[in-house]
Amino acid sequence: MTMPSTASVPHHAPAAELPPSPQAVAALTQALAALFGNRLVTSLAVRQQHGHTLTWIPNQPPDAVVYPESTEEVASIVKLCAQHGVPAIAFGTGTSLEGHVNAPFGGVCIDMSQMKRVVAVHAEDLDCTVEPGITRKELNEHLRDQGLFFPIDPGADASIGGMAATRASGTNAVRYGTMKDNVIALTAVMADGSIVKTASRARKSSAGYDLTRLLVGSEGTLGIITEVTLKLHGIPEAMSAGVCSFPSVKAACDATIMTIQSGLPVARIELVDDVMMRGVNLHSKLGLPETTMLFVEFHGSEEGVKEQAERFGEIAAEFGGGAFDWATRPEDRTKLWQARHDAYWAARALRPGAESVATDVCVPISRLAECVDETKRDIEASGLIAPIVGHVGDGNFHTQPLVDLNDPDEIVRCEAFIDRLVKRALAMEGTCTGEHGVGQKKMKYLTIEHSPAALATMRLIKRALDPQNILNPGKIIAL
Amino acid sequence: MTMPSTASVPHHAPAAELPPSPQAVAALTQALAALFGNRLVTSLAVRQQHGHTLTWIPNQPPDAVVYPESTEEVASIVKLCAQHGVPAIAFGTGTSLEGHVNAPFGGVCIDMSQMKRVVAVHAEDLDCTVEPGITRKELNEHLRDQGLFFPIDPGADASIGGMAATRASGTNAVRYGTMKDNVIALTAVMADGSIVKTASRARKSSAGYDLTRLLVGSEGTLGIITEVTLKLHGIPEAMSAGVCSFPSVKAACDATIMTIQSGLPVARIELVDDVMMRGVNLHSKLGLPETTMLFVEFHGSEEGVKEQAERFGEIAAEFGGGAFDWATRPEDRTKLWQARHDAYWAARALRPGAESVATDVCVPISRLAECVDETKRDIEASGLIAPIVGHVGDGNFHTQPLVDLNDPDEIVRCEAFIDRLVKRALAMEGTCTGEHGVGQKKMKYLTIEHSPAALATMRLIKRALDPQNILNPGKIIAL
Repeated sequence: MTMPSTASVPHHAPAAELPPSPQAVAALTQALAALFGNRLVTSLAVRQQHGHTLTWIPNQPPDAVVYPESTEEVASIVKLCAQHGVPAIAFGTGTSLEGHVNAPFGGVCIDMSQMKRVVAVHAEDLDCTVEPGITRKELNEHLRDQGLFFPIDPGADASIGGMAATRASGTNAVRYGTMKDNVIALTAVMADGSIVKTASRARKSSAGYDLTRLLVGSEGTLGIITEVTLKLHGIPEAMSAGVCSFPSVKAACDATIMTIQSGLPVARIELVDDVMMRGVNLHSKLGLPETTMLFVEFHGSEEGVKEQAERFGEIAAEFGGGAFDWATRPEDRTKLWQARHDAYWAARALRPGAESVATDVCVPISRLAECVDETKRDIEASGLIAPIVGHVGDGNFHTQPLVDLNDPDEIVRCEAFIDRLVKRALAMEGTCTGEHGVGQKKMKYLTIEHSPAALATMRLIKRALDPQNILNPGKIIAL
Repeated sequence: MTMPSTASVPHHAPAAELPPSPQAVAALTQALAALFGNRLVTSLAVRQQHGHTLTWIPNQPPDAVVYPESTEEVASIVKLCAQHGVPAIAFGTGTSLEGHVNAPFGGVCIDMSQMKRVVAVHAEDLDCTVEPGITRKELNEHLRDQGLFFPIDPGADASIGGMAATRASGTNAVRYGTMKDNVIALTAVMADGSIVKTASRARKSSAGYDLTRLLVGSEGTLGIITEVTLKLHGIPEAMSAGVCSFPSVKAACDATIMTIQSGLPVARIELVDDVMMRGVNLHSKLGLPETTMLFVEFHGSEEGVKEQAERFGEIAAEFGGGAFDWATRPEDRTKLWQARHDAYWAARALRPGAESVATDVCVPISRLAECVDETKRDIEASGLIAPIVGHVGDGNFHTQPLVDLNDPDEIVRCEAFIDRLVKRALAMEGTCTGEHGVGQKKMKYLTIEHSPAALATMRLIKRALDPQNILNPGKIIAL
């Protein structure tokens, strides 16, 4: 990966956050090698593979990568890290977008790819327990025969552990919620190596502090997730998906608001802007109009889905929506959503060779059209190429500037654009990230989004649970 | 309220948890009186009104009751409490069931009844922000004209702040979730008097630790909630409700499992056992069969509701359910659900003069029939009168032994019964409380439900956020 010339250490890394001494790292590596043999890897190539994700942050390799096979092994790794004062960083599939799993202070990367077991599926209870390394597609493959599915779908085929750690969501959060709503319980290894089971398998509980939700979205900074119990859903009897063009972003957003207000249980409702539609056509050969589009999907009974689709058609027409292109055959539906899920790669097709800087914000849905429109004008004025897709039902949208990393001026313009984007969302009562997480790149915005008292509370929690700051240091909040 | 002869201080109250000195209380009371005038009350009658809730724990009055009118006033109270080392206990409507708001170590009760404002309703965003003292019925009254409603409904007309603090749910959690799913953001006063806004109004966010969910269910022990932003829903176009008898608890539970597995979006599905049906008939004059019943409700479009009701009818018939009694007129539906919501009082009608000891557990739904059946046999064998109602869609059920407090032997039998009930639920991968919360009475069970490492994590959080242990001490976890 080429490194941008403006590359620097993460924002707000205080002097106290320093890499461990080479002696400590050497002693730890030796101890881990004794326990893990060739499941401990220190080659530069493997370390660099784990030293970045889909971001333009420069590669920050860990000192070693270890491949545990059980919760107990993770606990033994973390205990050794604690003993030697060396960072421990959990790693899933490496698809996070804000530098979550890079190792700015070195340390041990705990790669979960050997922990992919489905521990249990309880069909009657609509839940399952899995190890963190399994990806969402692998899990759904496993579940299909039982007529069950796990709905959360960030674009990437991310690991379930990583999705929990970043509080991920995706296209059907509008119907099924985010990871915070779909994780029933977690097992996590805490900074002292102790193993915490956060909750029972009961669907709901008021039995003490919600450690599940505290760990969901904590990005490996409070504990390392080693098992996840998830809510499942029966595969709907019927699904129908379609695309519809709109005369403007505002028209598409207004149709979405009306859809949700009227209680229509839309499963997916996705905005794709004209620029991204161009990329989608290039990448997925769909031949769709290159204008503002909504991709929608309905789940339910045959009759229910039919009724929903009809009602949505009426709403769309009211806001100037064009004719509907319905994908009724499963293979057409899959093709449509694959195209939407491939938006990240489709965007890259718009400017081959450029680096992609995917980021997201989320605002109350009533402000979404305004926020997207202003952002599109800003993109234009900044001379950037930056397609937009949005989970409009949630008020969440992504933009993905495509940047020539050899052009320092363009890098500066892109950074300034993201800065304005986030501040625009915050000014509209939104958040600096709806689903990607904070990682390193959004740390400076967390200090704008949250009051000093809220950040102080987060810091008190981090210090209480990880006093040595060994769990994924340099992420979320600086200590 | 008569006090049972076995009354004692709460379980697990360590020596370190002591009431503040009379001097500290006097100095604080004086300081508060200077600020609040006649909104500070120290009369015994008012203190005793705030010294117990719907439980058989003896009255534990605070030293004073204060009625703030703003977040800033709550902050000034907590700052003074911190300065003098005196407990601060938030109070909503006093309808909690496990001794949540009693003052075992004295201190200042912060009564939220003067903080009932609806700060904002955003109809397009389907959210509102309210002060914590407003009750769920008051809120829904306010929202009705705009075609919106807030779904969470514990039996009592509880305050929104109290419902957030106990992670409450109720009859339609199966469709709409619990308070954890319906609180978007909170404002809370922390133990040092600082004011924390946990999140923006965005529908979802990955921006840092989930302070919202940490405070939801923390029962006033980590912060005092002074504002709540809630998700709202459009009032459904159509609703239909009905009751159906079943030959056994197992048949009713199996019908429920099938309903949920088949993706039927039931809004409410409530088990009422034969004993409780007797109470319901006595209290609400419904004249329904006194056998195992399911109360169900569907929300949606006219057609959707009709289809759902038909499909549910088929499922019920498959499991031996009797003829359906549908309440299609709004007034009949209201009467039906009022009867269900009055179950607490209906139960008391079964044994006038006896004390009611309402408690709840929650298990995976696949174990529910077994758990309820064993519990009913246990009630019989214990010689207790204890009706059962259940939010069966969630695996959550309540039992409400009616106990003669003048009979020490009966008190012992009831305590032993609850002990077995909780342990039975835990052995079935359940929780010691699905929605009532821990308060004082479930503290000892928290130590069985959670591992020492999980409890240690909760304790670290409590100590970090409230080092003086002034926020509702003696609840959830002993320090």
